[in-house]
Amino acid sequence: MPRLRAHNIAVSLDGFMAGPDQTLEHPMGVGGMRLHEWAFAARSFGGAGDGLDEAFIQRGDEGVGATVMGRNMFGPVRGPWPDERWTGWWGDEPPYHHAVFVLTHHPRDPLEMQGGTTFYFVTDGLEVALERAFAAADGADVRVGGGADMIRQCLRAGLLDELHLAVAPVLLGRGERLLDDLGDAGAGYTCAELVSSDAVAHVRLVRG
Amino acid sequence: MPRLRAHNIAVSLDGFMAGPDQTLEHPMGVGGMRLHEWAFAARSFGGAGDGLDEAFIQRGDEGVGATVMGRNMFGPVRGPWPDERWTGWWGDEPPYHHAVFVLTHHPRDPLEMQGGTTFYFVTDGLEVALERAFAAADGADVRVGGGADMIRQCLRAGLLDELHLAVAPVLLGRGERLLDDLGDAGAGYTCAELVSSDAVAHVRLVRG
Repeated sequence: MPRLRAHNIAVSLDGFMAGPDQTLEHPMGVGGMRLHEWAFAARSFGGAGDGLDEAFIQRGDEGVGATVMGRNMFGPVRGPWPDERWTGWWGDEPPYHHAVFVLTHHPRDPLEMQGGTTFYFVTDGLEVALERAFAAADGADVRVGGGADMIRQCLRAGLLDELHLAVAPVLLGRGERLLDDLGDAGAGYTCAELVSSDAVAHVRLVRG
Repeated sequence: MPRLRAHNIAVSLDGFMAGPDQTLEHPMGVGGMRLHEWAFAARSFGGAGDGLDEAFIQRGDEGVGATVMGRNMFGPVRGPWPDERWTGWWGDEPPYHHAVFVLTHHPRDPLEMQGGTTFYFVTDGLEVALERAFAAADGADVRVGGGADMIRQCLRAGLLDELHLAVAPVLLGRGERLLDDLGDAGAGYTCAELVSSDAVAHVRLVRG
């Protein structure tokens, strides 16, 4: 059975996935880059690191045939799209190389990028976005890219089969909390793997 | 300079230090024991484990001459003490073997236990409790035993020199959150050590 997975989701010790006040200058919110230093030190993100952290980054892509993400992860634009100019944070060739379904309240035509990535804008809710993603993945897994709100929705609804958290050993103090108000949904997950580099603790949670 | 330290503070991935509804039957709150399984598997708490987790448990006692704790950590009694019968969770010989200052709104005579532990009940606030603890420690460090509220107060006020968190790879869903509303105080701490066993990630944060 194809599974719904989230990988390399960086959180602070106090549970924040991004700092406050996301803007073009601060795509991760103010201070939020501290959660991602381990990733930028790894080869996949331009660093030299080729150890545990790099291995976890690569595992996040394995067996994934489509991605779903929230609109705030796609970009800083809020409300109706003023024009077609914003095409994501990732330049002309985003690192997805498959169909990406962006959940939004505001319709927009599909956006075909270089390297096989096409962004589809879904206005019919999470379930429809997931249905379309699993159809596009054609038997492979679907990855939830983020942000915090979408991952939380998937967790609370028991839809997420695997969640790999990268716990950064920092206190952010404020920002957007990832693991909030999970209630009974939290008990449905068990730890399949726990291992640390010097920079980050990797926790792999699976449902059941 | 003597330092104020907290050790082996177990938190869930979603930031809870205890489950909801602390009672005599559930001293850690409902579900809260899942945060402490790693500790009970270690030799100091009656288990067989003698590795990394046991070493961290032992380090928490090294160089400590006195302890401060909140009233809810001392026991489940709320409001004025109805009598002198409650003497803590730890039996006739608590594992402290030094002066322990319990912060409470309700006065009570000092309580001398076997093995060198005496509980003093301080009604003049956190600063006074710390002053008395440092005096009793006589040049050694003071440990903040907990609970969540006292650790949070010390963190927010910038009083805590070292915080060792034991991050258990579980989602509790609800309970008493430890690292909440830290604001700018969070940025004052940096990670001095990050290392994991199979059961828990140890993070040692220091001020500055």
